[in-house]
Amino acid sequence: MQLGMIGLGRMGANMVRRLTRAGHECVVYDRNAQAVQELAAEGATPADSLEDLAAKLQAPRSVWLMVPAGITGAVAEELARVLEADDTIIDGGNSYYRHAVDRQEALRERGIHHVDCGTSGGVWGLERGYCLMIGGDEDAVTRLRPIFSSLAPGVGDVARTPGRTGEPTPAEEGWLHCGPAGAGHFVKMVHNGIEYAMMAAFGEGLNIIKHANAGRSDVEIDAETAPLSEPKYYQYDIDTTEVAEVWRRGSVVESWLLDLTAQALFEDPDLSRFEGRVADSGEGRWTSIAAIDEGVPAPLLTGALYSRFASRGLDLFANKVLSAQRKGFGGHLEKKPLAKPGDHDQPQAEQ
Amino acid sequence: MQLGMIGLGRMGANMVRRLTRAGHECVVYDRNAQAVQELAAEGATPADSLEDLAAKLQAPRSVWLMVPAGITGAVAEELARVLEADDTIIDGGNSYYRHAVDRQEALRERGIHHVDCGTSGGVWGLERGYCLMIGGDEDAVTRLRPIFSSLAPGVGDVARTPGRTGEPTPAEEGWLHCGPAGAGHFVKMVHNGIEYAMMAAFGEGLNIIKHANAGRSDVEIDAETAPLSEPKYYQYDIDTTEVAEVWRRGSVVESWLLDLTAQALFEDPDLSRFEGRVADSGEGRWTSIAAIDEGVPAPLLTGALYSRFASRGLDLFANKVLSAQRKGFGGHLEKKPLAKPGDHDQPQAEQ
Amino acid sequence: MQLGMIGLGRMGANMVRRLTRAGHECVVYDRNAQAVQELAAEGATPADSLEDLAAKLQAPRSVWLMVPAGITGAVAEELARVLEADDTIIDGGNSYYRHAVDRQEALRERGIHHVDCGTSGGVWGLERGYCLMIGGDEDAVTRLRPIFSSLAPGVGDVARTPGRTGEPTPAEEGWLHCGPAGAGHFVKMVHNGIEYAMMAAFGEGLNIIKHANAGRSDVEIDAETAPLSEPKYYQYDIDTTEVAEVWRRGSVVESWLLDLTAQALFEDPDLSRFEGRVADSGEGRWTSIAAIDEGVPAPLLTGALYSRFASRGLDLFANKVLSAQRKGFGGHLEKKPLAKPGDHDQPQAEQ
Amino acid sequence: MQLGMIGLGRMGANMVRRLTRAGHECVVYDRNAQAVQELAAEGATPADSLEDLAAKLQAPRSVWLMVPAGITGAVAEELARVLEADDTIIDGGNSYYRHAVDRQEALRERGIHHVDCGTSGGVWGLERGYCLMIGGDEDAVTRLRPIFSSLAPGVGDVARTPGRTGEPTPAEEGWLHCGPAGAGHFVKMVHNGIEYAMMAAFGEGLNIIKHANAGRSDVEIDAETAPLSEPKYYQYDIDTTEVAEVWRRGSVVESWLLDLTAQALFEDPDLSRFEGRVADSGEGRWTSIAAIDEGVPAPLLTGALYSRFASRGLDLFANKVLSAQRKGFGGHLEKKPLAKPGDHDQPQAEQ
Repeated sequence: MQLGMIGLGRMGANMVRRLTRAGHECVVYDRNAQAVQELAAEGATPADSLEDLAAKLQAPRSVWLMVPAGITGAVAEELARVLEADDTIIDGGNSYYRHAVDRQEALRERGIHHVDCGTSGGVWGLERGYCLMIGGDEDAVTRLRPIFSSLAPGVGDVARTPGRTGEPTPAEEGWLHCGPAGAGHFVKMVHNGIEYAMMAAFGEGLNIIKHANAGRSDVEIDAETAPLSEPKYYQYDIDTTEVAEVWRRGSVVESWLLDLTAQALFEDPDLSRFEGRVADSGEGRWTSIAAIDEGVPAPLLTGALYSRFASRGLDLFANKVLSAQRKGFGGHLEKKPLAKPGDHDQPQAEQ
Repeated sequence: MQLGMIGLGRMGANMVRRLTRAGHECVVYDRNAQAVQELAAEGATPADSLEDLAAKLQAPRSVWLMVPAGITGAVAEELARVLEADDTIIDGGNSYYRHAVDRQEALRERGIHHVDCGTSGGVWGLERGYCLMIGGDEDAVTRLRPIFSSLAPGVGDVARTPGRTGEPTPAEEGWLHCGPAGAGHFVKMVHNGIEYAMMAAFGEGLNIIKHANAGRSDVEIDAETAPLSEPKYYQYDIDTTEVAEVWRRGSVVESWLLDLTAQALFEDPDLSRFEGRVADSGEGRWTSIAAIDEGVPAPLLTGALYSRFASRGLDLFANKVLSAQRKGFGGHLEKKPLAKPGDHDQPQAEQ
Repeated sequence: MQLGMIGLGRMGANMVRRLTRAGHECVVYDRNAQAVQELAAEGATPADSLEDLAAKLQAPRSVWLMVPAGITGAVAEELARVLEADDTIIDGGNSYYRHAVDRQEALRERGIHHVDCGTSGGVWGLERGYCLMIGGDEDAVTRLRPIFSSLAPGVGDVARTPGRTGEPTPAEEGWLHCGPAGAGHFVKMVHNGIEYAMMAAFGEGLNIIKHANAGRSDVEIDAETAPLSEPKYYQYDIDTTEVAEVWRRGSVVESWLLDLTAQALFEDPDLSRFEGRVADSGEGRWTSIAAIDEGVPAPLLTGALYSRFASRGLDLFANKVLSAQRKGFGGHLEKKPLAKPGDHDQPQAEQ
Repeated sequence: MQLGMIGLGRMGANMVRRLTRAGHECVVYDRNAQAVQELAAEGATPADSLEDLAAKLQAPRSVWLMVPAGITGAVAEELARVLEADDTIIDGGNSYYRHAVDRQEALRERGIHHVDCGTSGGVWGLERGYCLMIGGDEDAVTRLRPIFSSLAPGVGDVARTPGRTGEPTPAEEGWLHCGPAGAGHFVKMVHNGIEYAMMAAFGEGLNIIKHANAGRSDVEIDAETAPLSEPKYYQYDIDTTEVAEVWRRGSVVESWLLDLTAQALFEDPDLSRFEGRVADSGEGRWTSIAAIDEGVPAPLLTGALYSRFASRGLDLFANKVLSAQRKGFGGHLEKKPLAKPGDHDQPQAEQ
């Protein structure tokens, strides 16, 4: 079927490629004319404006937005002006799910459908397919089935869940209509919240393995660290690269994130290219806010978020308060990092 | 090659089966004579005592212990008495890694080798193979390569980590010599710590999705919960079973634990067979203690452990202290769970 | 000076009493006529409607709202209709600070001032005085200085912070103009966030002391708990009531919350009157949301909130997911609580 | 009564002073002869060796050790050699409570008593008195009552806990016999665990207040931080120094730690003398290990510990793993801190 695509960044462009290969006709637009030309060369129909894009699509039109979350609202609004009743706007970006609720409400007056589609798969989606979590009215979603079906990975070679029989459900193909407006982005938001925690679980665990040599006499200890009471149990130099690799086969933590971790460690065992300042986009925050609003505990999901904040030094004033308190009750002065290993003394006691 | 196996529970028996199928000769012993007979019927050589087992193995002997962590020490001690210099004891259970350090030290005097082998794979290992994390002296481990190689999954159909070329390393086959005594159980311990956090990440995330209907007027709210300020954003009834299924294809959280979660939800969507009292064995605890000893933060790994403790009600007195404090400064009385939905009033303010 | 007070619950009534004793004239209103009469008998001027209250105050009027957060907005709106330009509404309740920002914006068009005042002190405020955290325009706050000064505890017998000299600042008297609209409720919100964490710190610590007998053979252990490796170090029966009391003198954790804890434990050492279902009002939630919005980590403040959620069983589905996963990979069945102490077996291993 | 004191650092010396003022006779020893002379000048009896100290005390002797935890064991062992049956060694330092259990066991053979005494009060103890948490045999503790009574703050001007009548209990004077060997240090350990969490609660809360200007256009935002969706609610410049001060009067978070915080902020509002590298001594670690051993959740107490670890950069490799994963699935590159405010772009999306 026909689909308009606005936003030809890495994600949008690859989705167009995947759809084109599957036989769909994509009319594409981006502010960057070169991005449009590249996809035109691969078989897409170029558009040089939103109006042009609308004109090149037959009604009822379906137009997919794949633009940064920060501008999705503005682009959707602009797009709506060139669409007609019964057309559909699909927001495939990492938007806050509440915006889908609000936007659908606003568009409904003009008879325009709104579908929110959480899209997972990253730079690998062209090859692996995209996992799609979809919200919106039944009618609007139903009309787009061929698109979702082509973007999704399909049943593939993933083992079928025991007990499932008969025709695969859409979820088994990798796309799911989760509920009314916003439900798709809600599920994608939580997906990312889980992702944050899984990533941190590997980070924490590998860090513990990395420091399994904490008892070696030649390991630098910062002055604030209490000496180990039983250093003989922390004498290991374990190869984290090979550990990540071995877990890929037969262990309980087998996962795609582990695959990526193993790859990253193989390329750069000390990860020396990175400084460990971990960014966050909105989903981890929104997931925690949803947990708080619902009143359900999510200590790991929020903990993963807070660890990212701390990785960027945003706990600085809090830590200074503690140092100041310690000086207040115990006369403790902060110690400086040591010049050389072994050059440390007893940590000062808390009172 | 020849291997003695002591402990023919689910894990031990399946390992014997996998080894036998691969052409190894297993001499097997268990206190439960029937378990011995069953494996004898499948081609293993039965032994009716540790002495008998030792007698049926040619020196240098290799004997694998697959018994509960609580009795491993005693069995190893008993076994050592019937072994000779240059024989090897392999502890394949979920023992504390420090015990391997201590036991190796003790056995060294008698010239007996000790190898600790963390074994992941659970009830699925017979079919999938076991992921093996191994500690001990180079010589002892080298001699056992054929055994490890047969127990491990092998390269299988797991995609090779990009960049790796040539002959697969042992890690790529699913087994790894991690370091000296204890290193294998250390890595297995951290593996389980990560596993706890990954499990909890899915638990927390699915719980948030389950409560996405928190704003519906017909949803029961306990009396202590502040009413939602924007209930319109929490009106979803999302099918967690299908969500777990869709994430299995193309999402970032693809993992074996997700596969198991999808299966469990498919069999019992409300998980009504479970009460949510989550047990813990030792590894999660030991992982957190290692993090504390090393001085590295592990908020998610420890958080996952604490959530399990709380799931079993072990936070009760702490919570009572809070209720008592609230009564103290605000005159707040605890509220009872409500008889019926909607039958609630304003929560009482903190001062 | 003259002050109108709307809302004569425990907090509002006691504030009127404290102001009356200090020589201010309070005109009081509540939907509950009896509450009005009671305070009239103690010297306040009764009003039987908002109009009546407005009529009995000289312009420019100052009217303090001390009503539940859920209805503050509606009452403020109603009140504004009977006020005039240059009058002031003070919101002294536990409102969300954003409402103060929004309300001030709305009232400004009519020339009415809005002051938000976070009020700490609970049922003890009549006697101890109220700690006041204030937001709003400079002019409006300045006019109310005599009221704030009388409600606040005053310098009292709290030791002066070393280094401070000269005339005490308002903060030293117990009230502070924190900034523009909302700043008062913002600071009060964070105050409560800290309060949650301090409460939980005592709860957790006392719980650890309570379980210091975990190694005693006669202590009931649930079936899921791994046996202690060194039970001899957990043989203590420590009197938590006396511990809380001793900490009140000379320790680093001296605090008013400790005083209340010591009192609660003295009255009921096992806190058997409580079930440990800990309510939360909005501030702890808002504090965590502010941390998330600002991008600063607040693991303890949010952790305290989540522990309250869990105390009310809102982690149930998450925990069931974990039990189901454990069954999936290890064939583990959940164990039931034991009928009697000692009647337990080995916990089942994670794989 | 007579008391020997070994270790004349800040804590030990001040305790001698407090005891001397109360009429006790202290025989003092330290490796540092000058420290001995200083106290001799203030009325203590100097000793120039352990033997000398033992000789100057009448049997049965009581000798208090106030030396760093790391050497307490060695000094106690040396001291025991010059003592006789029925003498008593008191360990007043921040020792691991298990050492008291072990040491008492060892000393019992020689008939020497061992008392463990957790001592809180820091540099302020001379003036405020010391809060004492004591473990050991009833007889040994009873004999030392006059010493404990003089070191403790006494009833003082702390309000009596409502309901308590009659003669004050020792806890009301500030000392408590908590139980057998180790119980004193156990309670002191948990005290410090609580202290860590209370400190962090203030640190986190004040950090949230400090960042209440996160929505101001002139505030530097790091490149990884998602722009605020509603910046108008984060426009505050709140004076944290005055906030800490106002909370000291009438609020629920009144505490000695708050007093110290207010003082530190008054002296140095930006805490620019500190770098925020927060040390930890052993107690916070041991408290968390006790919680884990007992199987009770302590998310805040452990969270406070982990935040200290992170403040010293010990989460670095974990964070690098996350950055590497992000690059793996999304092609995200880490961003550098910005050169100047406002110079940032959209954060990159998680997939």
